Amino acid sequence: MAKEEKKQSIAAFITPRSEDFSQWYTDVIIQTQLCDYTPVRGCMAIRPYGYAIWERIQQEMDSRFKEQGVENVSMPMLIPESLLLKEAEHVEGFAPEVAWVTHGGTEKLQERLAVRPTSETIFCEMYSRWVQTWRDLPMKYNQWCSVMRWEKSTRPFLRTSEFLWQEGHTIHATPEEAEEETLSMLELYREVAEDVLALPVYVGRKSDKEKFAGARATYSMEAMMQDGKALQAGTSHNFGTNFAEAYNIQFQSKAGKLEYVHETSWGVSTRLIGAIIMTHGDERGLRLPPVIAPIQAVILPIAAHKPGVLEACEKLNAELKAAGIRVKLDDRDTVSAGFKFNDWELKGVPVRVEVGPRDLENGVVTVFRRDLCEKVTLPLEGLADALKDLLAGIQKTLYNQAKAFRDERTKTVSNIDELGEQVQNGFAKAMWCGDQACEDMIKEKFNATSRNMPFDQEAHKCGDTCVCCGKKADKVIYFAKAY
Amino acid sequence: MAKEEKKQSIAAFITPRSEDFSQWYTDVIIQTQLCDYTPVRGCMAIRPYGYAIWERIQQEMDSRFKEQGVENVSMPMLIPESLLLKEAEHVEGFAPEVAWVTHGGTEKLQERLAVRPTSETIFCEMYSRWVQTWRDLPMKYNQWCSVMRWEKSTRPFLRTSEFLWQEGHTIHATPEEAEEETLSMLELYREVAEDVLALPVYVGRKSDKEKFAGARATYSMEAMMQDGKALQAGTSHNFGTNFAEAYNIQFQSKAGKLEYVHETSWGVSTRLIGAIIMTHGDERGLRLPPVIAPIQAVILPIAAHKPGVLEACEKLNAELKAAGIRVKLDDRDTVSAGFKFNDWELKGVPVRVEVGPRDLENGVVTVFRRDLCEKVTLPLEGLADALKDLLAGIQKTLYNQAKAFRDERTKTVSNIDELGEQVQNGFAKAMWCGDQACEDMIKEKFNATSRNMPFDQEAHKCGDTCVCCGKKADKVIYFAKAY
Repeated sequence: MAKEEKKQSIAAFITPRSEDFSQWYTDVIIQTQLCDYTPVRGCMAIRPYGYAIWERIQQEMDSRFKEQGVENVSMPMLIPESLLLKEAEHVEGFAPEVAWVTHGGTEKLQERLAVRPTSETIFCEMYSRWVQTWRDLPMKYNQWCSVMRWEKSTRPFLRTSEFLWQEGHTIHATPEEAEEETLSMLELYREVAEDVLALPVYVGRKSDKEKFAGARATYSMEAMMQDGKALQAGTSHNFGTNFAEAYNIQFQSKAGKLEYVHETSWGVSTRLIGAIIMTHGDERGLRLPPVIAPIQAVILPIAAHKPGVLEACEKLNAELKAAGIRVKLDDRDTVSAGFKFNDWELKGVPVRVEVGPRDLENGVVTVFRRDLCEKVTLPLEGLADALKDLLAGIQKTLYNQAKAFRDERTKTVSNIDELGEQVQNGFAKAMWCGDQACEDMIKEKFNATSRNMPFDQEAHKCGDTCVCCGKKADKVIYFAKAY
Repeated sequence: MAKEEKKQSIAAFITPRSEDFSQWYTDVIIQTQLCDYTPVRGCMAIRPYGYAIWERIQQEMDSRFKEQGVENVSMPMLIPESLLLKEAEHVEGFAPEVAWVTHGGTEKLQERLAVRPTSETIFCEMYSRWVQTWRDLPMKYNQWCSVMRWEKSTRPFLRTSEFLWQEGHTIHATPEEAEEETLSMLELYREVAEDVLALPVYVGRKSDKEKFAGARATYSMEAMMQDGKALQAGTSHNFGTNFAEAYNIQFQSKAGKLEYVHETSWGVSTRLIGAIIMTHGDERGLRLPPVIAPIQAVILPIAAHKPGVLEACEKLNAELKAAGIRVKLDDRDTVSAGFKFNDWELKGVPVRVEVGPRDLENGVVTVFRRDLCEKVTLPLEGLADALKDLLAGIQKTLYNQAKAFRDERTKTVSNIDELGEQVQNGFAKAMWCGDQACEDMIKEKFNATSRNMPFDQEAHKCGDTCVCCGKKADKVIYFAKAY
């Protein structure tokens, strides 16, 4: 029992969130065994509980991709240097953080190979071979894989040298179709973020400074963490014919002309797990949205030695499982009930069902909901349906809480001082002239960056002079400190 | 239409299987767009049709893993050289084919990092941190990822520098549990191979010469390809405490003693796709077992311009989809019906449903089954159920055909000349003294290797002298040329 007791005491000592948000985050992910550090610099091991969340995210995303006609493929993880060098902006953006393979076995390679930091270049190369006529278009491919970016300072899930993601790459016959694809994938991301992960996000277009290396336009969704900082939770890029020209991806149009394809790419990563933790977590640890919680309900026998308790728990376990609830019966007899309470609260399981002898006599169970940390008594009869309703309610509550927080911490600002103050606290919504010099100055002064510009600019308009330089401005944009 | 016509003529010119099996294989995978070569030496791009097969295999495997209590994780793809070097046999086995990362961005790394050729070493390192007491055991983790082995000569799906696989790694408190795990995963593999992929396999134990680098025992399943060669389709290893001692993975036993864990690992890869092609394919192309076919039935409108035909096809498409059949309606109007016939036969779709005006008048459809290349007429009424039965029948036929072929090409041999002759044709079952010198000689003379030793040795016994040296022998073993 020594080990569990130790764990228990550690669990009780998660750094308070209000005291040191960053240390709280690290404590939570290590204590809940979402992931761990490894001997490989900047690379993490994702443990079963963390990976199960990722699998849930994958399923939700992947089924939606497939509904959109996207097909999965697998491209090589290594990219020859010469291939990477073909698109100038792209190289410039990624070369500083590429890990290079130089030797195969005992032989030095004639050409270095990059461990993919992203796969535009190899997709372009293959698309140039695979597309011939307009009939082959669109091609909408995606891959689930890991990529490598040699980061100087890393944080689990948020910024690691290697991370898991999906990268979609599509080619189209017309610029309109490409733009439509770019935006519809952003909308798909928004839907998953808000409906599945309970993360309210601002969607919009990135400034030129902040867009992807080689893109004509980048769109993003931005979530607010509980320290008021922004987390870019997903991006969708329209490349126009930029890469197509560099990699010579041409097709014969209906009219018989040779034309360049219009290309997009879009991706989300295990960052989303970081976003879930920093959006929903509290002093007791994780709070997982029911839709992606690997365990939605945990059953705890109270006074398990009393006749009938364990049997009732097993029966209930089978019933809830049959009803499609991801349930776990915690029948460990090596730890106390109190330890189990802490343990599952720490792990963020949305619902705890306590089954004790007195409850059983009365035909009820005690249900603890993790979102509000409240107990309710529910009849055993029809519990599965009641729990489903409760889980749906918890999902909604988590979203609403996060949205209220985000809205409260988003303020419109009209001058540089207000902006400087607001980004200490949350998002600053401001007018901007469009000049990169203003972004640079804001970055230098406050370490804040432009996040994105809402789509309906007219509706969001909040002035007509730039928050920084005071000149005429017609762009509404969010600024924030960011992960 | 020019492009499709060209494709059609190419499809017609797949190299005859009987003429050049190897070229037939390459033609089939390229023509069916399962995968393609890339500018990265020895690495392939798996295209949507090939990846969809892999996804089906993953689902079948992964759900079974989970039933066995295996949990998925993600480990770093890079492994520090010092970590790789800790287990001597293992290093010796893999070092010659490791791809090395030596630079991160513009900096030379202090220590080289191996792109994982397999992940025993990093799992061991993490297990040594994660396990403390007997209560933590067993730990049964798996990851789906790609690994890299710098191969000199490569063939798509069969031997590529990078390939996709799953690798399970488990640790246990006792040697008995580890052995049980090793064997139960082999049994799981056998079940998937035979019931899902329709691949009959011989399961058994590898000789010491052929076992995995660092394993105490390796078990494998061996399938026979249509050229009579063996393909090792999956392996399961028992490491005993071999790695645990090298990586210091200890736990406190129930009795309070510090003990080494007993470890296993097991894996299958995209090789299985190669096995499917080379086991079931024929002169017309692929024949996919229905359970893993991405498309189980294709609906072809005949005389689609006639009133009612296309509508009937769409209705049928919806019905079959609703019944859980993976169905595709091919309503292209840019290619002929004849082209479509060839195209879907080439792609190995198990069932083709032809819907024409005359059929419709009679309330029937014409169904072509790819396994026997035969047509039958079936009533439209209740077609979904009839097709399900038919698909199950096709699955069985493919297995039975493959098993009959395999059994016919497996012969018991009692001397070296018979063995030499038999391995030109298929598997040679023989008695063996257990001496590696005999394996070496057989390899040198005939380029054949020992495959595995059946579990029930007594039942398989076929003599008492070694097929090679003539000395006393008590081991039954299969020899074959192998991929």
